[in-house]
Amino acid sequence: MAVIERILMGPGPCNPYPEATAALGRPLLGHLDPAFLQILDETCDRMRVVWGTDNTLTLPVSGTGSAGMEAAFVNLVGPGDVVVVGVNGMFGERMCDVAGRCGAQVVRVDAPWGTPLDPQAVFDAHRSPKVMALVHAETSTGVRNDVAAVAAGKGDAVVLADCVTSLGGMPVAIDAWGVDVAYSGTQKCLGVAPGLAPLTIAAAAWLRRIPDPRSWYFDLGMIGEYTSPGSRKYHHTAPVAMIASLHAGLGALLEEGLEASWERHRACGLALQDGLQKLGLDLWAPEGHRLPQLTTVLVPDGVDDVEVRRALLDRYSIEIGGGVGPWAGKVWRIGCMGHTARPRNVTLLLSALSELLGR
Amino acid sequence: MAVIERILMGPGPCNPYPEATAALGRPLLGHLDPAFLQILDETCDRMRVVWGTDNTLTLPVSGTGSAGMEAAFVNLVGPGDVVVVGVNGMFGERMCDVAGRCGAQVVRVDAPWGTPLDPQAVFDAHRSPKVMALVHAETSTGVRNDVAAVAAGKGDAVVLADCVTSLGGMPVAIDAWGVDVAYSGTQKCLGVAPGLAPLTIAAAAWLRRIPDPRSWYFDLGMIGEYTSPGSRKYHHTAPVAMIASLHAGLGALLEEGLEASWERHRACGLALQDGLQKLGLDLWAPEGHRLPQLTTVLVPDGVDDVEVRRALLDRYSIEIGGGVGPWAGKVWRIGCMGHTARPRNVTLLLSALSELLGR
Repeated sequence: MAVIERILMGPGPCNPYPEATAALGRPLLGHLDPAFLQILDETCDRMRVVWGTDNTLTLPVSGTGSAGMEAAFVNLVGPGDVVVVGVNGMFGERMCDVAGRCGAQVVRVDAPWGTPLDPQAVFDAHRSPKVMALVHAETSTGVRNDVAAVAAGKGDAVVLADCVTSLGGMPVAIDAWGVDVAYSGTQKCLGVAPGLAPLTIAAAAWLRRIPDPRSWYFDLGMIGEYTSPGSRKYHHTAPVAMIASLHAGLGALLEEGLEASWERHRACGLALQDGLQKLGLDLWAPEGHRLPQLTTVLVPDGVDDVEVRRALLDRYSIEIGGGVGPWAGKVWRIGCMGHTARPRNVTLLLSALSELLGR
Repeated sequence: MAVIERILMGPGPCNPYPEATAALGRPLLGHLDPAFLQILDETCDRMRVVWGTDNTLTLPVSGTGSAGMEAAFVNLVGPGDVVVVGVNGMFGERMCDVAGRCGAQVVRVDAPWGTPLDPQAVFDAHRSPKVMALVHAETSTGVRNDVAAVAAGKGDAVVLADCVTSLGGMPVAIDAWGVDVAYSGTQKCLGVAPGLAPLTIAAAAWLRRIPDPRSWYFDLGMIGEYTSPGSRKYHHTAPVAMIASLHAGLGALLEEGLEASWERHRACGLALQDGLQKLGLDLWAPEGHRLPQLTTVLVPDGVDDVEVRRALLDRYSIEIGGGVGPWAGKVWRIGCMGHTARPRNVTLLLSALSELLGR
């Protein structure tokens, strides 16, 4: 089978850091091998730096980003618990579905897709919810929600944040903001293949966990007994190759510097958004709430969404994403995340689009 | 960090096939890329061959083997459903825990660890269970349970089989046996790193599924809409690197031939078991129900379990496993699975043990 090399500028996965790919090719270690456990511990330490947290319970869930969502909800939400969910895109919708399956009483706070949530509306939705949940970087719309503002006014609620598309690519400060539980995915701004969900949970929220969650696989109490250096009790066989890759990807990110990574994502996103506007295209997400790492742009009138994306793939081997849900066919979603967030990729995509659109 | 090269002879992971490791190092593809979807479809086709099934719903669950267990139960078992579980080791115990969290009325059928289940006892446990569940190859004890016999007498029940340690290393025939749902893991006799759970479910069992399972992440209805060539509806971002690796590992296995792989596992296991007995060691699992791919042997009197395993690791870079649960410290578990199942590894381990034990 021919090897195909893409520039991955969709909503994820991005191109992984070369260090992350190289780690996947190294000899496999057992999940209880002292050499692997050292890699695991260092991975958790590196994740704490990237999350901006001292939380003990900071670990990679053995599944993709959505597994992180399920792990967060299933350990904190039980039948009858009131969960306020901010919904302004597909991943807010998904939170309602996941919380509902945990038996929660879900209170939705909607904002139109493509606009940010109003923190005050989240506070006003219920007088004493157990959980307030929202998505930091809505991958379906390219909109940033103000997680810090929601956390600042949370009262007695647990704040649960989806940081799948934000972590590593823009400021995330779990402890400083007072976020109680958050999860991410490896395949976005962390620059690693999809397959793991970094998750962190604060000690105070952990005291309010469901003792016997509906999920065995995502039981963070049992998983924590394996990841904790003091215990190492077997739960499930850790996905050792993917964890070694995350270890290496986080190593590359931290060698560059977390703030330098944020700045690189910001600069690439701004250059892309500026260039798209110069091509006469209209951005979807509003200024001030626009994600640099995931740009949404309206498909121009008279242009065929699928045809352009297919030409990008066939002629330039560049992947960008289409719209989802009610916005399928109406927007493109262009990621500049992880190792993909390089000026040369921005320049190439803009030139390719210019050729294809004849502008 | 120095690269460490182990011979992985524990209960899993094994050493992956070189083809599977090479695939992990190839450029990443997006989860909706036509080139990746072809890999996904071929992977599902190859899994059907290895499972011995025509089941449409045959797919890799995005988690480790235990994620396969959870996916199987959560889609078939709801509150109040009667589930008979055969328990003669740790993974039978785990099935009870998982089924219980689904709300099932669990009926246990116990056999002592180290002995096989009696199929008649499974039939006698309840007159009309919804599900009869058992482990084909008990990784905790090295014992084979007779899944074919249970499936042959299932009546109206759904037979749910854990094939984590059996698939690819010994005969498994889902359709011929009449097994309704089964799952495996990639890191045993399939010769791939841990991280995916191949799963298959028959059409008749699918009709009896839980329409709204408690788990969103493991909702096989939604996952099937993505893996089905006719639909491709986004559910979660597939772990593309691991799926490409499974594709390559299954390719290597099928190029050798499924029956040739079974025979290689059988021959290596027999040679190992013969050699261990010649060293004066006692095998735990009884003849006739002894797994070739996972051998359990009693730690001899006066020998320190941990010291021997550490010496194997430090001096020979060979990993073997210790006992679990009530058998911790009392047995060793020695895997000969996937790419590890080669005569040279058997010879080396026997010689190393001979040196260490002074026999």
